[in-house]
Amino acid sequence: MLAKQYKDMLAEESVIRKMFYFSTARAKEIGAENMFDYSLGNPSVPVPEKFSQVIAQLLAEEDPVALHGYSPGAGIYSVREKIAESLKKRFAIEYRPEHIFMTTGSAGALAHAIRCVTQPGDEIITFAPCFPEYFPYVSMSGAVLKAVLPSLKDFQINFEMLENMMTPKTAALLINSPNNPSGIVYSQETIQCLADFMQRKAKEYGHEIYLISDEPYREIVFEGKKAPYIAAFYADTITCYSFSKSLSIPGERIGYLAAGPACKDAETIVSMCIQVSRTTGHNCPSSLMQLAVSKMLDMTSDLSVYETNMELLYRKLTELGFSCVKPGGTFYIFPKALEEDANLFCEKAKKYDLALVPGDTFGCPGYFRMAYCIDTQKVKRSFAALEKFVREEYGGKNETRKA
Amino acid sequence: MLAKQYKDMLAEESVIRKMFYFSTARAKEIGAENMFDYSLGNPSVPVPEKFSQVIAQLLAEEDPVALHGYSPGAGIYSVREKIAESLKKRFAIEYRPEHIFMTTGSAGALAHAIRCVTQPGDEIITFAPCFPEYFPYVSMSGAVLKAVLPSLKDFQINFEMLENMMTPKTAALLINSPNNPSGIVYSQETIQCLADFMQRKAKEYGHEIYLISDEPYREIVFEGKKAPYIAAFYADTITCYSFSKSLSIPGERIGYLAAGPACKDAETIVSMCIQVSRTTGHNCPSSLMQLAVSKMLDMTSDLSVYETNMELLYRKLTELGFSCVKPGGTFYIFPKALEEDANLFCEKAKKYDLALVPGDTFGCPGYFRMAYCIDTQKVKRSFAALEKFVREEYGGKNETRKA
Repeated sequence: MLAKQYKDMLAEESVIRKMFYFSTARAKEIGAENMFDYSLGNPSVPVPEKFSQVIAQLLAEEDPVALHGYSPGAGIYSVREKIAESLKKRFAIEYRPEHIFMTTGSAGALAHAIRCVTQPGDEIITFAPCFPEYFPYVSMSGAVLKAVLPSLKDFQINFEMLENMMTPKTAALLINSPNNPSGIVYSQETIQCLADFMQRKAKEYGHEIYLISDEPYREIVFEGKKAPYIAAFYADTITCYSFSKSLSIPGERIGYLAAGPACKDAETIVSMCIQVSRTTGHNCPSSLMQLAVSKMLDMTSDLSVYETNMELLYRKLTELGFSCVKPGGTFYIFPKALEEDANLFCEKAKKYDLALVPGDTFGCPGYFRMAYCIDTQKVKRSFAALEKFVREEYGGKNETRKA
Repeated sequence: MLAKQYKDMLAEESVIRKMFYFSTARAKEIGAENMFDYSLGNPSVPVPEKFSQVIAQLLAEEDPVALHGYSPGAGIYSVREKIAESLKKRFAIEYRPEHIFMTTGSAGALAHAIRCVTQPGDEIITFAPCFPEYFPYVSMSGAVLKAVLPSLKDFQINFEMLENMMTPKTAALLINSPNNPSGIVYSQETIQCLADFMQRKAKEYGHEIYLISDEPYREIVFEGKKAPYIAAFYADTITCYSFSKSLSIPGERIGYLAAGPACKDAETIVSMCIQVSRTTGHNCPSSLMQLAVSKMLDMTSDLSVYETNMELLYRKLTELGFSCVKPGGTFYIFPKALEEDANLFCEKAKKYDLALVPGDTFGCPGYFRMAYCIDTQKVKRSFAALEKFVREEYGGKNETRKA
């Protein structure tokens, strides 16, 4: 008989995917250039050219049996060395290769981290709005995921609600800054507060509370700023990184988990990750990809288009009367919908060939997400559709707002 | 607190790995050419040169954003089409792309298949000697793995013991032919018997019993033969394939799961695999690797060296008095040890710079595995060490056996 738990999941189709399917179908009717698809978080800029050169060089120079051979359980040692070195240099934290575990993107890192630090029945707390896939990552690990609602004025952490949701069963907190879908970057103050809070709670409960930090957007920060490096604030941090967004290679499934060197069980966690892999059939990312990214650790794609798009969109949305916190990074923006039900709002937008994603799917009803990892010219062309949508569907409301 | 179940696994170090570590350390002392490492199943022949050409072409001709972009949950559709087409052509079974799910090698396929067809508490039955990693693949899925002991005369299936181990909780049988570690290929007769048996049992229990067929060695068969294609014998077969061995790219982690088209839930199983991935953080193998192997489906590395090595080793082992079933494929041979405790036997072999793996780790005590995916010259050079080992440690026994 088929497994009930996975069969049941077939019913809950991803809202993001559904919107993307609509968009793809509609693009066939009206031409891709006329469909304004803000649904998917797929990088729109190419990987640096060096990537192909690095791969060509590896293929030309390395012994193919070794190059394409099994990598050790935690990843290729020289790759882990280079990652540790790079993190150490950038963030002044004493990472060693033994703290690094190679993963299939941040998804793989999260799935491993969650399994390592929870016992069945434990709780993990995350913060809405959040990536909806956090729920399945946690669901089959035996732990339970709960989401704290945000402070809607700035999408920073709502500490009062966090305090109320903590219990002695809380094994870990799961954060994502820069954040999908809000585009918000946690301030240094927020992170320091969180670290102090967690230290206090860990002491109170008499056990570690791990901070699992999901950082695929670490390099996409605006106004020339840098995102504060979370692990620098709290010893028991497990950093989950992906090259998907920084190098625009999401299909290559490559990232890593870095256990904070000041965490007393850091090396044990990495060893346990190898064991987790044995149960999920993970067995490392592609050897070629591990070696390729290790030669590009301090590079990114040209990410500037995301900031350009954000500035354009933010200005236009504000002008049209939307209430919206200005993103500090990522390629998402998360405005308030013009009616209470963001599902209805996004449904109506489809008539104007706009694919938007309702905030409900991120645990934050009444808002919607726009993924502006698209061509800047298309962002500009979408403004007429946005204007028409707002005027025709919310003319009165919009006027009122402006007044 | 760290997860007890994974932390406990740290204690049970892999015997194969331990032997490999010994071998690596010893090679440093005496030179790699003098260490006869028969411990690891790592392909020793290079991937066909076409592989690098295919990758270079993809990198040169495809749009990098699309090439390295997210693949859909089940894998890239065109890749699944080509795999279905190739299987259809080779095995005359009506596969469609909807039956194919792209995985990180056979390990990934097995982990998905097991999760799809079991409920917590269900049982899966496999056949010793078997790949030890089957146990962790099953352990965290909520199911239980039991192993049927083999018919030692030919390592085909022991149907009497299988019958005794079946219960209404048996959700699936897990087989591996050509087999690691025995090198045996199940005969057409064995497979037909198994199919008939399973049909009878499925009827008796009133529910499907799935046949999970682990086939990484499908293309490594000797004497110009082909391994019978398991799914042709039994409708509810889930085939788990890997390109690791046929193309010598185990580090690239690429394979697929194929749900038998005659299985009524075939497409549901593939859809469920996507859901399983969401919980394990799998999210497909590398896009570049998917596309690369799709252009090499009907090719293999030059696998002839494995047969050459097998013939040499089989002759020598028989000559030295070992009792041994002649392998029909793979790059393993599984002789009976010259004393009851194969662990002691393999421990003694280390003195002669021979790395052998005791059969206990494969659920078959008293035997040992030699992985002869090494250079043929080295196989030949190892004979003096083998002879010395047998003469000095088992001189009398060997004479007796020969007499």
